[in-house]
Amino acid sequence: MPEIRCNPVTDQWVVIAAERAKRPQDFRVPREERKYTACPFCGGHEEETPPEIWAYRTKGTDKNTPGWWVRTVPNKFPALRIEGMLNERSEGVYQAISGIGAHEVIIETPRHQIEFQEHPVEQVEEIIRMWRDRSLDLRRDHRFKYIQIFKNHGLEGGASIEHTHCQIIATPRVPKSVEEEINQGMARHQEETGRCIFCDMVEEERKSGQRLVVESDHFLAFCPWASRFPFEIWIIPRRHQDDFVGISDNEIKSLAWVFRECIQRLTNILDDPPYNMVLHTAPVNSESHPGYHWHIEILPRLTKLAGFEFGTNYYINPTPPEMAAKALREGHQPVVRPH
Amino acid sequence: MPEIRCNPVTDQWVVIAAERAKRPQDFRVPREERKYTACPFCGGHEEETPPEIWAYRTKGTDKNTPGWWVRTVPNKFPALRIEGMLNERSEGVYQAISGIGAHEVIIETPRHQIEFQEHPVEQVEEIIRMWRDRSLDLRRDHRFKYIQIFKNHGLEGGASIEHTHCQIIATPRVPKSVEEEINQGMARHQEETGRCIFCDMVEEERKSGQRLVVESDHFLAFCPWASRFPFEIWIIPRRHQDDFVGISDNEIKSLAWVFRECIQRLTNILDDPPYNMVLHTAPVNSESHPGYHWHIEILPRLTKLAGFEFGTNYYINPTPPEMAAKALREGHQPVVRPH
Repeated sequence: MPEIRCNPVTDQWVVIAAERAKRPQDFRVPREERKYTACPFCGGHEEETPPEIWAYRTKGTDKNTPGWWVRTVPNKFPALRIEGMLNERSEGVYQAISGIGAHEVIIETPRHQIEFQEHPVEQVEEIIRMWRDRSLDLRRDHRFKYIQIFKNHGLEGGASIEHTHCQIIATPRVPKSVEEEINQGMARHQEETGRCIFCDMVEEERKSGQRLVVESDHFLAFCPWASRFPFEIWIIPRRHQDDFVGISDNEIKSLAWVFRECIQRLTNILDDPPYNMVLHTAPVNSESHPGYHWHIEILPRLTKLAGFEFGTNYYINPTPPEMAAKALREGHQPVVRPH
Repeated sequence: MPEIRCNPVTDQWVVIAAERAKRPQDFRVPREERKYTACPFCGGHEEETPPEIWAYRTKGTDKNTPGWWVRTVPNKFPALRIEGMLNERSEGVYQAISGIGAHEVIIETPRHQIEFQEHPVEQVEEIIRMWRDRSLDLRRDHRFKYIQIFKNHGLEGGASIEHTHCQIIATPRVPKSVEEEINQGMARHQEETGRCIFCDMVEEERKSGQRLVVESDHFLAFCPWASRFPFEIWIIPRRHQDDFVGISDNEIKSLAWVFRECIQRLTNILDDPPYNMVLHTAPVNSESHPGYHWHIEILPRLTKLAGFEFGTNYYINPTPPEMAAKALREGHQPVVRPH
């Protein structure tokens, strides 16, 4: 019998179609052939990107030259633009605002042939540090109300460039989906229990263990109860914290290991699946949201969204999260890391 | 300068990235090769599907034999199941209900080689009649609160079977997205103006004309202001009506022509793009929603949803709806049909 599960944060329903349960080997995603040819993100090609915004580089090397290990540049085809005024206009019953925002690319390494899961863990730490640095800098522009950090991998994941990278988009309004997280499930749970729903999820998942993937001193990775996608993973910090930029250096180490571990395991059991990574965090430059609990969502893109999903916003997931978590643990005993 | 537009019904924001505007010829979707080999949906293969629920067939022909022109059967791999009790269960902080519902397939023709846009208009009328018949029958089961009629076309549209068909899924709860349409944009507009937002959109689109695709006596087809997808089309009945099943026979004729016209034009200018069709209508077996205004959304699937969309629920659309509508009108002057 299929089951319809409710995401306690967003109130979104997911049909867990256990009867046609799909194990890792049931997904045949054609492995994308990689070209491994030098591209504008490669070391030595710095002048092929828009001018560097920020980079971690060897002392004495110049901007827009080699010597960097993580580098942020403006997106060459930005979805939103930093220049201009934030104007509103209406047309009959309709409304619009000008497309003010920022759209940046974080190039994770100068080496084209490296995949995310092949980074040394210290390199992943540097990438996370760059997320923090850029988020701190972007919020100095008070027009920006939300800073979305994300990563697309593979063609089905929407990546048009294969050289491993993340992206940041700053938006002039708080997205409705973030407002809903805050005002619906989180607010209701707070009201009913006096506690944070994410803190309670961390406790629940550690106790039950059946959806656990890996854990470290500071982070828990598990397949969420109402996973929209097969092998979906959430990474939640154990310490309650609304804003990602409050992450400590110790926590960065811990997150880098857990994050890489999750992608390594997905890559191992699903043969390099396409995926999206999305960082959910509190809005900026608006009222504070101390009840928010930042977290990361990893969304493998093995199924297609179609008419039913667009009509109802119910998702259909053929892989129960308990089965997904078991596969992600197998061959890798759940590991507790010392930092 | 890109523009962020607000959907007045759902409050969803869409980035219209006009600067990298994509015209029809800029989308290169690899045309899917069709096999044209007989399948379980073909005439003469009736015993390869689960037993027939309802069919329009020549008098004197038996169920599950040839002689039909539109045929409804249960989905062989249903997302939700009709058998069983609607139970709730909770597990720690989480909740679920049993996956009760119905999942049916409407086979649009016994002929495998016909595409939707090649149907005679009378055949499309029969398909719409079947939607109405099945919706009326399914709502007799009071466990069902919403009846989602949809169509997936092409691999990117999530269609796993090429023989042209629609689907119906009945769900045991009103989807949150439908509740939001009703309680947010529609309610706000009603409160502020005393009018229906869809009725006002019909007026606005007829007056402005710049997003219009085609119109008939009873229906208007246009590219919506906050189109999420390139070449997205909404078909709205001019007469205010909450529930699709109230459609008259005259209106069915009018809708059949407009619907086929839209798909023909999409096929012509985009070379058979993948798409989803979604029918939005009022919930059933619950309080009445006289303010609802049923309509159809056609969603061509030429762009990928990725991290930004999943993080913020903002969509990025590289084709302004005004440009899309112009292309859809070109070569076909906007036509007013007599019925």
